[in-house]
Amino acid sequence: DDDVHSLDEDSPPPYADEFIHFIDSAPTVYHACAYFASALKAAGYIELPERASWQHIAPGGKYYTTRNSSAIVAFAVGGQYKPPNGIAVVSAHIDALCWKVKPVSKDSKGGYDRLSAAPYSGGGPTTTWDASHHTWWDRDLGLGGRVLVKGKDGKIVQKLVNLGRPIARIPTLARHFGAPALGPFNFETNMVPIIGMTPTPPSDEQLDDIPGVMGKQHSARLLRAVAKELGVSVLDIVDFDLELFDVTPSVYLGLDKEFISAPRLDDKLCSFAAVSALLAASSDPSFLANSGTISMAACFDTEEVGSGLRQGAKSNFLQVVVERAVEVLAGSSAKGIVGQVVGRSFMASADVTHALNPNFSDAYLLTTAPLLNVGIACKVDPNAHFTSNSTSIALVRAIAEKCDSAVQLFHIRNDGRSGSTVGPMLSERLGMPTVDIGIPQFSMHSIRGLTGASDPGLGVRWMEGLFREFEGLGDYVPFE
Amino acid sequence: DDDVHSLDEDSPPPYADEFIHFIDSAPTVYHACAYFASALKAAGYIELPERASWQHIAPGGKYYTTRNSSAIVAFAVGGQYKPPNGIAVVSAHIDALCWKVKPVSKDSKGGYDRLSAAPYSGGGPTTTWDASHHTWWDRDLGLGGRVLVKGKDGKIVQKLVNLGRPIARIPTLARHFGAPALGPFNFETNMVPIIGMTPTPPSDEQLDDIPGVMGKQHSARLLRAVAKELGVSVLDIVDFDLELFDVTPSVYLGLDKEFISAPRLDDKLCSFAAVSALLAASSDPSFLANSGTISMAACFDTEEVGSGLRQGAKSNFLQVVVERAVEVLAGSSAKGIVGQVVGRSFMASADVTHALNPNFSDAYLLTTAPLLNVGIACKVDPNAHFTSNSTSIALVRAIAEKCDSAVQLFHIRNDGRSGSTVGPMLSERLGMPTVDIGIPQFSMHSIRGLTGASDPGLGVRWMEGLFREFEGLGDYVPFE
Amino acid sequence: DDDVHSLDEDSPPPYADEFIHFIDSAPTVYHACAYFASALKAAGYIELPERASWQHIAPGGKYYTTRNSSAIVAFAVGGQYKPPNGIAVVSAHIDALCWKVKPVSKDSKGGYDRLSAAPYSGGGPTTTWDASHHTWWDRDLGLGGRVLVKGKDGKIVQKLVNLGRPIARIPTLARHFGAPALGPFNFETNMVPIIGMTPTPPSDEQLDDIPGVMGKQHSARLLRAVAKELGVSVLDIVDFDLELFDVTPSVYLGLDKEFISAPRLDDKLCSFAAVSALLAASSDPSFLANSGTISMAACFDTEEVGSGLRQGAKSNFLQVVVERAVEVLAGSSAKGIVGQVVGRSFMASADVTHALNPNFSDAYLLTTAPLLNVGIACKVDPNAHFTSNSTSIALVRAIAEKCDSAVQLFHIRNDGRSGSTVGPMLSERLGMPTVDIGIPQFSMHSIRGLTGASDPGLGVRWMEGLFREFEGLGDYVPFE
Ligand SMILES: [Zn+2]
Ligand SMILES: [Zn+2]
Ligand SMILES: [Zn+2]
Ligand SMILES: [Zn+2]
Ligand SMILES: [Zn+2]
Ligand SMILES: [Zn+2]
Repeated sequence: DDDVHSLDEDSPPPYADEFIHFIDSAPTVYHACAYFASALKAAGYIELPERASWQHIAPGGKYYTTRNSSAIVAFAVGGQYKPPNGIAVVSAHIDALCWKVKPVSKDSKGGYDRLSAAPYSGGGPTTTWDASHHTWWDRDLGLGGRVLVKGKDGKIVQKLVNLGRPIARIPTLARHFGAPALGPFNFETNMVPIIGMTPTPPSDEQLDDIPGVMGKQHSARLLRAVAKELGVSVLDIVDFDLELFDVTPSVYLGLDKEFISAPRLDDKLCSFAAVSALLAASSDPSFLANSGTISMAACFDTEEVGSGLRQGAKSNFLQVVVERAVEVLAGSSAKGIVGQVVGRSFMASADVTHALNPNFSDAYLLTTAPLLNVGIACKVDPNAHFTSNSTSIALVRAIAEKCDSAVQLFHIRNDGRSGSTVGPMLSERLGMPTVDIGIPQFSMHSIRGLTGASDPGLGVRWMEGLFREFEGLGDYVPFE
Repeated sequence: DDDVHSLDEDSPPPYADEFIHFIDSAPTVYHACAYFASALKAAGYIELPERASWQHIAPGGKYYTTRNSSAIVAFAVGGQYKPPNGIAVVSAHIDALCWKVKPVSKDSKGGYDRLSAAPYSGGGPTTTWDASHHTWWDRDLGLGGRVLVKGKDGKIVQKLVNLGRPIARIPTLARHFGAPALGPFNFETNMVPIIGMTPTPPSDEQLDDIPGVMGKQHSARLLRAVAKELGVSVLDIVDFDLELFDVTPSVYLGLDKEFISAPRLDDKLCSFAAVSALLAASSDPSFLANSGTISMAACFDTEEVGSGLRQGAKSNFLQVVVERAVEVLAGSSAKGIVGQVVGRSFMASADVTHALNPNFSDAYLLTTAPLLNVGIACKVDPNAHFTSNSTSIALVRAIAEKCDSAVQLFHIRNDGRSGSTVGPMLSERLGMPTVDIGIPQFSMHSIRGLTGASDPGLGVRWMEGLFREFEGLGDYVPFE
Repeated sequence: DDDVHSLDEDSPPPYADEFIHFIDSAPTVYHACAYFASALKAAGYIELPERASWQHIAPGGKYYTTRNSSAIVAFAVGGQYKPPNGIAVVSAHIDALCWKVKPVSKDSKGGYDRLSAAPYSGGGPTTTWDASHHTWWDRDLGLGGRVLVKGKDGKIVQKLVNLGRPIARIPTLARHFGAPALGPFNFETNMVPIIGMTPTPPSDEQLDDIPGVMGKQHSARLLRAVAKELGVSVLDIVDFDLELFDVTPSVYLGLDKEFISAPRLDDKLCSFAAVSALLAASSDPSFLANSGTISMAACFDTEEVGSGLRQGAKSNFLQVVVERAVEVLAGSSAKGIVGQVVGRSFMASADVTHALNPNFSDAYLLTTAPLLNVGIACKVDPNAHFTSNSTSIALVRAIAEKCDSAVQLFHIRNDGRSGSTVGPMLSERLGMPTVDIGIPQFSMHSIRGLTGASDPGLGVRWMEGLFREFEGLGDYVPFE
């Protein structure tokens, strides 16, 4: 209704802010999970505890479920949905490279308190530069994760703790000292996080060590900091899973803020896009009421160490959600409805991909090297490391056209090797047509990555396109 | 009309000709799939689109279903069938080693048009000889696969294209050039197929580049060749999945023509045998009407790259077909009927095996090294690389007796290692008793193999025996 | 009848005797399976053939099911059970390193009958000492497994055969022969078990070889021995799966008998503890009648070769059992009840772990290296090789407190690597919260290990604690 732009006020591309807010307030795999859960709840999604019955699933309903509070699946059932209509799914992972606190972390040296931690997805023999855990030098590291606390009733409640301020640092040695400052470095002895000064003379608070198992395994100050942050007594802490993470806020970067600089892009970026797309589509009454499909977003843990465990993509998580939902919706009449549903479904497996890095262009196949702020990329590979093929790409393009977004391609050189994604694992398990897409980024596996400011939104736009246009394009591509 | 045999004019063993015709006219995984689909349709099988409801499945019915049009499952329901009666299944794979056209294949160098392609199941670091893709030097290669074309109604229809003549060549360098001619060779730069001359001066046809995405990704001449072959306009081509394949016809070989020389034996040979056996059994009204079982043949894709993806054996494809068929046939009464059906079913996982190669006899365990033109072989292994064990072998022998065919064994030496098959994956997924059988051949994974002229027929005979005798032998072996 | 203990007669720790009895009478994976089946049947458990319908499952009922008779799942449904109450599961594996009889084992050389066998989980290139299969020299080996026999009605029945006495020997060469006696040794030619004499002159019984396939593949005497042991005629033997095993009885060891020396500790020890705990809990009427959970013990095959096949942890076995049991118990009303049940369930994946060995103490992280006769150990690892995390460890400690047992930790150094277990695979497949625990032992993967005399009982105590306390602790730990 307004008709003119004033000169001095321009807004960031869609979803850029929300993404940034997300990445900063969800620094661990547990927080990411909780963040989505509350965003969904806020949008009227009902939690389906895996342990509860899902009988009340009905068309027009919006639901979500979690595992190990580090993996989550959410879906909106179209108002006009009835089996065997298909499901449109977007899947991603929310775990990222970090350092995990060891079961026994108490350690101090040279007047400083140190924290004994192990590198997640890395470590092993001594080296000078490993392009991943060696980007953690001189970073402000926060500490967070989940804590098991004994409640009043003696039961364990799980709280998330985020000592959301810089707690630890892995400090370099100044170059003025010559050789010892230039490496190679040992993961067990040179890269030990420093979290404080060993207090001297002992202040009054410390008369008593903390009794119990935890007191023997972790320093009192760490336990107190956690207890204080949670507002519980330190005696009620049963145990915890804590990670070190980059505590620096994510920010816009670039002249026109056309970049977002953030830690943990691999793969919170696609997870965020998936959930946002779902929320956007399912918060549109006109869509939800008239939709004859189910729109679904799935976010897994442990992808960086092989997707194992029950909260990983290798698990039966997604399959269980699909079956339980379809069965409730099919009511009493139908047989083998799940198969039909799956046959008519489509999944986009979304994991970040490598944007062309102009400073290292020789490592790419230039004709299929994606750019930032253009649009998602289809990952293609001849050896089934990815699921994309012509039919799934055709649909991707059709949707792209509908929602007016661009599609890029990623393919590696014949004399290289490529990583893997959750795509193949999920499509095997469900048998659902699948495509591997990715939002481009720089510096994958560094502590801090870079993506396009529009990329989160462009991801959302395509994924929302998938949710919205899927029904219309039902038989555009002859899937079978 | 004649009733006696003269000395110099005699007919090939059963199924030898059909097999040859099959292998030559179905050069890609898509053609193989379509070939079976039409053979089944011709025999009265009804297609069950996965997306459709399979309510009309009834005893005495014959059905088939496909995925990605590169995997197919066909089954005949016995006239007397009712749950929880078992299913007799033969499974195989139809993918073979080849080179796949890249998403961007346009390339010309030094006055030649080159086609940018990637090796399927292979590639990686430079090497001198890899016993598989290095058998592709100086072969006449055809091009084919599937093409997505925009129909009049704007929807995509899928067509198969087979430029069934020599299109590409990967040329060696003459030895006179010394070292560079002796390798090692790089898959990205030394093994690029050549498909033509770069035309100069430009002929009139070229005035305009082909607009659209495809025009930027592939050379105009390729697109025109495909369009012409399909009789559509080049502007309607949306995308395609194309493979390079050996275009030389299969032939009889040997003094008494007791061998067949053909490409892609691994595992189109067993797939062909499986489908032929199903057709033979289910085209026998007396059998079909009286049978109380379901007879099924399953052919998968991606076996050569780990059986991933939804059209691979690792997927839930077979499981879904079974569950949906059973649930339709079970009507309203029973719970967990599928488990019972599966418990009473039996699967023969058929993948070609290594016939004794007399020039390398030390690599074999001579007491379990199969010969050509004798019969199928059971593959046995102590480390769970195969599924055969005593119960499943017992059944194999019982059937062999019934249909008068011989059974051989294959086992490796203790100081060797062995490959894998779809057997273990399918039986993990379904929990169905399984056996690993194989039709012997020479030179597995070369571009061109050798098998016995009678071997295709001997395969068919046993598999037909399985379908026919399974019911009779139902509780002959105490599976659980 | 007597009511006091005199000074000189002291009893072994709990379950030590039963464990010893078990390990000796269940030498193969099949016997272990049958042993558990009959122990369960004796305790009133009803067998649920997978092929049969499980309609009669009811609260207070006790059931079990097997696959390939080498994997077994047993469960007791609490009297007060109703979906979606959870299941408490303990999983382990019952396969152990052994030698498997080859399909063609007939072999005689130098006047001896030799048995051609292959090393299970091992083998490969020639070596002097491999710390596992080279501990089989000069051990008394029994032969056993399962046999398929044709019954009167011509059908195959399966029998277990345990030639429970020393049958085979892999003999060293006496040092008097110099170099050839000192190795390296070849698995194919030097390590061939000897089972008897080649009889000469032929006695009357041998007029004719045994006709049929088996006669050609195995020596007549082996077949006769099996036939005689089974009390069937040798003509009725269809086939068999046989293993060689250490036939030496397990014994107490140490001045105060504080050790148990036994073969096949890896992982029959944990399997035994799991089943005993189930029996102990479910044989307590007061517990069973009032329990609102299902208590389950699952024992798998093929763990030592990657957990493949339908009877391995990678298969759908456990999942099918859970689903069918839950569906029956849920009656007609509920949909997707299984998911709820699984969500409220908990699994302890139990596989033996490495006790500190004082003659090699440098290879350990001493702050997390377990001892014998103390209690189970939680295995922790940052790279998802184990499933333990804070929530599952919290529950482990809570249960330990309830049933008064100690919990130890196992973790490796940052500059080392670690092994794997069934934990991750099962929790992927079911999505059930899981922890990796282990009973400590010496000399894992030797033919004969050593554990603490109290360790079996300490394992049972904790696992029984799990079954008994699980309901009470249901929401002690906030699993999801
Ligand atoms: Zn990723
Ligand atoms: Zn990654
Ligand atoms: Zn094959
Ligand atoms: Zn192959
Ligand atoms: Zn083990
Ligand atoms: Zn082991």
